Amino acid sequence: MPFNPTVDIDALRAGNRRALARAITLVESQNPAHRPAANALLDSLMPYTGTSTRLGISGVPGVGKSTFIETFGLRAIERGQRVAVLAVDPSSPVNGGSILGDKTRMESLSRADGAFIRPSPAGDSLGGVAQRTREAILLCEAAGYDQVWVETVGVGQSEHAVANMTDAFMVLMQPGAGDELQGIKKGILELADFIVVNKADGDATLLAEASRRHYQNAVNLLTHNGFWQPQVLSISAVTLNGLDTLEGQLQDYLRLGSKSLAARRTGQNLSWLEEQLRTLAWQAITQDPDAVTRYQRAREAVMNGTMAPIPAAMSVLQP
Amino acid sequence: MPFNPTVDIDALRAGNRRALARAITLVESQNPAHRPAANALLDSLMPYTGTSTRLGISGVPGVGKSTFIETFGLRAIERGQRVAVLAVDPSSPVNGGSILGDKTRMESLSRADGAFIRPSPAGDSLGGVAQRTREAILLCEAAGYDQVWVETVGVGQSEHAVANMTDAFMVLMQPGAGDELQGIKKGILELADFIVVNKADGDATLLAEASRRHYQNAVNLLTHNGFWQPQVLSISAVTLNGLDTLEGQLQDYLRLGSKSLAARRTGQNLSWLEEQLRTLAWQAITQDPDAVTRYQRAREAVMNGTMAPIPAAMSVLQP
Repeated sequence: MPFNPTVDIDALRAGNRRALARAITLVESQNPAHRPAANALLDSLMPYTGTSTRLGISGVPGVGKSTFIETFGLRAIERGQRVAVLAVDPSSPVNGGSILGDKTRMESLSRADGAFIRPSPAGDSLGGVAQRTREAILLCEAAGYDQVWVETVGVGQSEHAVANMTDAFMVLMQPGAGDELQGIKKGILELADFIVVNKADGDATLLAEASRRHYQNAVNLLTHNGFWQPQVLSISAVTLNGLDTLEGQLQDYLRLGSKSLAARRTGQNLSWLEEQLRTLAWQAITQDPDAVTRYQRAREAVMNGTMAPIPAAMSVLQP
Repeated sequence: MPFNPTVDIDALRAGNRRALARAITLVESQNPAHRPAANALLDSLMPYTGTSTRLGISGVPGVGKSTFIETFGLRAIERGQRVAVLAVDPSSPVNGGSILGDKTRMESLSRADGAFIRPSPAGDSLGGVAQRTREAILLCEAAGYDQVWVETVGVGQSEHAVANMTDAFMVLMQPGAGDELQGIKKGILELADFIVVNKADGDATLLAEASRRHYQNAVNLLTHNGFWQPQVLSISAVTLNGLDTLEGQLQDYLRLGSKSLAARRTGQNLSWLEEQLRTLAWQAITQDPDAVTRYQRAREAVMNGTMAPIPAAMSVLQP
């Protein structure tokens, strides 16, 4: 059945999840013919956006992200919040399932009235996936979600992308040494506002506490700009240990940083505009078959060492 | 006196420093009318490039970089090497002096026959400065320099740029806690192949040793891809303590990594080509006054929250 890009804006604004899902499908569409409708939709909804707490949540597979988000989300819903969970997973196949955002992973949350869960959009580049997710955030806000959580796996550059579209960035860590190294390697400690060692329960309690101290030491080595010193804590998404503390700290962060966060969002939007404009300019080259042929020739000349990169680049634009 | 972009290629190839200096001035020129001559020069010299050891050297002001480079350079010259020192300093004013590369800083080295020292090119963006420095590396190689060292201050993104144009990246560190934090904050430990605590002499010897252990611990936390575990050592550019060790390690690095380094250079060149092509595509927008006006309007709409960034970007390209 071909996708018909008609979105019921009133239903979306009233919180109808099917209307929201259709709207996200529209902005995610890689069919250029759908873009004008997507733009018109976003334009009409802009006045109703910017209203949520945007939280990035990262962690390697196996760290217990789904359980955490389910628990954390249900608690927010109990407090009267509406929670949307989006995923950014650039490794997911272009056509097909994603390792993130699968509704069956978070069964109780996905059945809750105040929740909306959306898998990662298909895409061949992180940039494309990130752009579509940024638009999905706006749509969720227009649909009345107070919390928009963007989930990503702890690999590659996706954390940077997610940190650049959210107000707060949280990293879940495994108790134990292996993942500690992984986390530090990716420079993720510099991005994180909250470093949360999960699975601090049962036999792993002591190990989690040791990991927490380890990360605390690592964070102490960083100098941090701005109003916030990254918080390090250990929790259990199963026993609920530490979740009160985490929620309190998140409140503190949002209250203390309200001014900085507004500036952060404006800066994020302007970067997004420039990035998009650069993408469009680049697309003008990569969608021109003659330019693509010249680019391939230029790459070969550079690989063979017969041309320096700058003249090679000019040869692509000036045939 | 207007710059006349004529370069004596034979003199350059024979190692004449004035000819090399003129050639670098030509590729650094921001006058678009000079570009064809610069490209022709680079094209004709390409067969003679790629022959040097490209070493990046970074460190905050005050760490003793000039003294180190002077000492390290004179030792290389004594071994029969020819050494070129280039600087990347994006903070230097567009027209005027640079805090790096000042010949008077390295008086003995600048007077040595086998040395060539060049200050940072003027430029308003790191990208522009980096591109011109990459071309200057090629010119130094064509002029027969065995060693091309690219120096940068330990601030901002310039280390990434320098690491992306060199075979090995060395960071000089101050003994003591303040700079340790600074170094770690900038993620520089992930870039460094060599972490060198300078000033391990006199009263500072013990402090330098403590710093060395500190960095060693930090490096042990990182997982490192490839053939090389970053080396951490303390030296004195004054007493020459540790310089033999450093030179030996650098030799090991180049020998062990010869295959990886060839692939690293090809990858650097292809990235440079794509980056340059993207820059040219972006320039086509920023040099069109009508597009600039539309971009300004789009930025205002995004700041006011009346347009989402993607439609705003399209409004710039499709008036």
